[in-house]
Amino acid sequence: MTAPGITEALQFALDASESVRGTTSPNPPVGAVILDADGRIAGVGATAPPGGPHAEVRALAAAGDRARGGTAVVTLEPCNHTGRTGPCAQALIAAGIRTVYYSVPDPNPIAGGGADTLRAAGITVHPGLGAEAVLQGPLRAWLHRQRTGRPHVTWKFAASLDGRSAAADGTSKWISGPESRARVHDQRSRLDAIVVGTGTVLADDPWLTARLPDGELAPHQPLRVVVGTREIPTSARVLDDAAPTLVLRTHDVQEVIAALGDHPDVLLEGGPRLAGAFLAAGCVDRIQAYIAPVLLGAGTAAVEDAGVSTIAEALRFRRERVETVGSDVLLSLVPERDA
Amino acid sequence: MTAPGITEALQFALDASESVRGTTSPNPPVGAVILDADGRIAGVGATAPPGGPHAEVRALAAAGDRARGGTAVVTLEPCNHTGRTGPCAQALIAAGIRTVYYSVPDPNPIAGGGADTLRAAGITVHPGLGAEAVLQGPLRAWLHRQRTGRPHVTWKFAASLDGRSAAADGTSKWISGPESRARVHDQRSRLDAIVVGTGTVLADDPWLTARLPDGELAPHQPLRVVVGTREIPTSARVLDDAAPTLVLRTHDVQEVIAALGDHPDVLLEGGPRLAGAFLAAGCVDRIQAYIAPVLLGAGTAAVEDAGVSTIAEALRFRRERVETVGSDVLLSLVPERDA
Ligand SMILES: NC(=O)c1ccc[n+]([C@@H]2O[C@H](COP(=O)([O-])OP(=O)(O)OC[C@H]3O[C@@H](n4cnc5c(N)ncnc54)[C@H](OP(=O)(O)O)[C@@H]3O)[C@@H](O)[C@H]2O)c1
Ligand SMILES: NC(=O)c1ccc[n+]([C@@H]2O[C@H](COP(=O)([O-])OP(=O)(O)OC[C@H]3O[C@@H](n4cnc5c(N)ncnc54)[C@H](OP(=O)(O)O)[C@@H]3O)[C@@H](O)[C@H]2O)c1
Repeated sequence: MTAPGITEALQFALDASESVRGTTSPNPPVGAVILDADGRIAGVGATAPPGGPHAEVRALAAAGDRARGGTAVVTLEPCNHTGRTGPCAQALIAAGIRTVYYSVPDPNPIAGGGADTLRAAGITVHPGLGAEAVLQGPLRAWLHRQRTGRPHVTWKFAASLDGRSAAADGTSKWISGPESRARVHDQRSRLDAIVVGTGTVLADDPWLTARLPDGELAPHQPLRVVVGTREIPTSARVLDDAAPTLVLRTHDVQEVIAALGDHPDVLLEGGPRLAGAFLAAGCVDRIQAYIAPVLLGAGTAAVEDAGVSTIAEALRFRRERVETVGSDVLLSLVPERDA
Repeated sequence: MTAPGITEALQFALDASESVRGTTSPNPPVGAVILDADGRIAGVGATAPPGGPHAEVRALAAAGDRARGGTAVVTLEPCNHTGRTGPCAQALIAAGIRTVYYSVPDPNPIAGGGADTLRAAGITVHPGLGAEAVLQGPLRAWLHRQRTGRPHVTWKFAASLDGRSAAADGTSKWISGPESRARVHDQRSRLDAIVVGTGTVLADDPWLTARLPDGELAPHQPLRVVVGTREIPTSARVLDDAAPTLVLRTHDVQEVIAALGDHPDVLLEGGPRLAGAFLAAGCVDRIQAYIAPVLLGAGTAAVEDAGVSTIAEALRFRRERVETVGSDVLLSLVPERDA
């Protein structure tokens, strides 16, 4: 049983980490909350862009003297090493923190071990608080990259109930509903990179920017990546200066993955051929399928050529979540190999 | 607020009506429960096959003298007319029932008016008990037929996440999981008819029977209907004697609908071309889509040629329900016109 104040602090820490997703690489987007000795929230912090302070240090700065005798709630084990910033474990000790809750251990052999340092200084340490929410949520991509050395690729698509992502004449605006589209924009604003094939750029001329509900650009824009050998026109919207854009003239999925090395949280937004290539290469770590309550009976399929010719070769996934988003259903799946 | 005994009785009545679905046409599958004067269950009944007694009469027979001073809970307003059996309203009055709960009014101008007859005899009548469950459930098809004069057609399909109902080489066993398949067998055992095209018979040679989990034939088998002009071999499994079969050598969906006149609860089980034709003709009243967590990237689409060429013409549906069935997701939808 966790005290209600701790649960509430965890929620603040999760929100803080979400708020900086996409802006912290190569550091993880961490959230931290300092409670004073009476259990009241004294400071909230999240990881600053690279070179800036870590979440704990920012939360301690906000709490000031109220940290003394207090509790820290952090989404990741406080770091132990002196990188561009000093170790967070030391900062917590110096501030007089008595108790530390953290969600997931730091898998990094250099930065890890912070919990032991805290314990050695007489601090009570509780690991595992809200671990599931953090593993699935803000630290998912960063942890994946720590574990595999590769970016975490989410393939997102919108399709009709019969799996078409455009009608017979190529029209596709809109298959999914406004709530789903708003959700994708919100998601983009917390990503490191968005990837599409030249086919999507040439067919739809998308901006691939993250927009707020009022249509303004979100403060953080992910890197836009276009993959394919065809020339795209200099007038393409994806080449405007709302966000940086990388054009990769290749068909080699591994080359794309390598080029995304510094961008752990990647959204593959299609289209069907590039998605098929990523799937066939085993480079999709999660699927987010927005299924609209619509039938087309003809048109572009959501995925083409995934290397499957008979049912025994079907690519199989495990359901992670089913939600309704407006009138659509959002299915989140992970490959069975990760089950 | 309804007393707990009444809610429990409603559940028994619903279960009783479910148990006779598919066997009562042209009568509705009704369930009835008689509670004695102390509120204990004294008798449960469901509609007998045509010519046999109605649910109330069977429940009264089971209750015997214990009905006197008691309560009846019925899924449909007790009938008022003398058809092949006497009017149920009179039977309830004669048995000394004091209170009647029923779920939905009888829309039939001849049979309707039972509630007034009961009230005139001094019985307290509560309409609307559990109306939603009955409207969506056991009486759905019968009420649809009363309202429209046409059978209620549910199009059921199983598809991959990318909307394929078979792989590139035609294999489709199994896209959906065992739980979904068991559920379809259970559903078949309570239907009036199952419809497929010759294409499905020629490709898959299905039995189209309802089987129990142990593989035995269910006691009730729906009529099997095969639509199309091609000859089907006399050795086709669908022509065995496990259930009656109707072969309709036509492409005219309205002709199929007319031929199903006595079969209010119809399951269209495919394939893609016949489904497309039913959809284009506006003859699908509900969709049940079993979406499996599988990608194929090639193969037969779940529906072909539904008459849609551009996104503005997309067939739009309203979500009625989303459930998980094993590892599949079952989406139930109704046409927007019925919203
Ligand atoms: N509903 C949705 O979620 C959604 C999302 C995106 C797109 N779409 C629709 O998809 C359609 C475009 O389809 P598309 O398949 O042409 O789009 P695409 O997958 O974005 O682009 C295909 C192109 O990707 C390049 N490519 C790079 N690596 C590849 C590889 N390993 N294998 C194959 N191709 C590779 C090739 O470009 P080069 O030929 O230049 O070498 C290929 O022509 C449009 O109608 C669009 O509206 C729908
Ligand atoms: N996953 C699933 O839920 C599911 C369910 C069923 C089937 N399937 C798959 O579907 C494939 C068979 O596809 P299919 O499209 O050939 O099957 P189908 O739709 O069952 O049969 C097509 C045939 O229906 C007849 N038909 C009757 N009225 C029609 C109309 N108005 N318009 C067009 N056709 C009409 C035609 O027969 P004639 O040519 O004889 O006149 C046509 O060839 C098989 O691979 C099977 O495994 C999958």
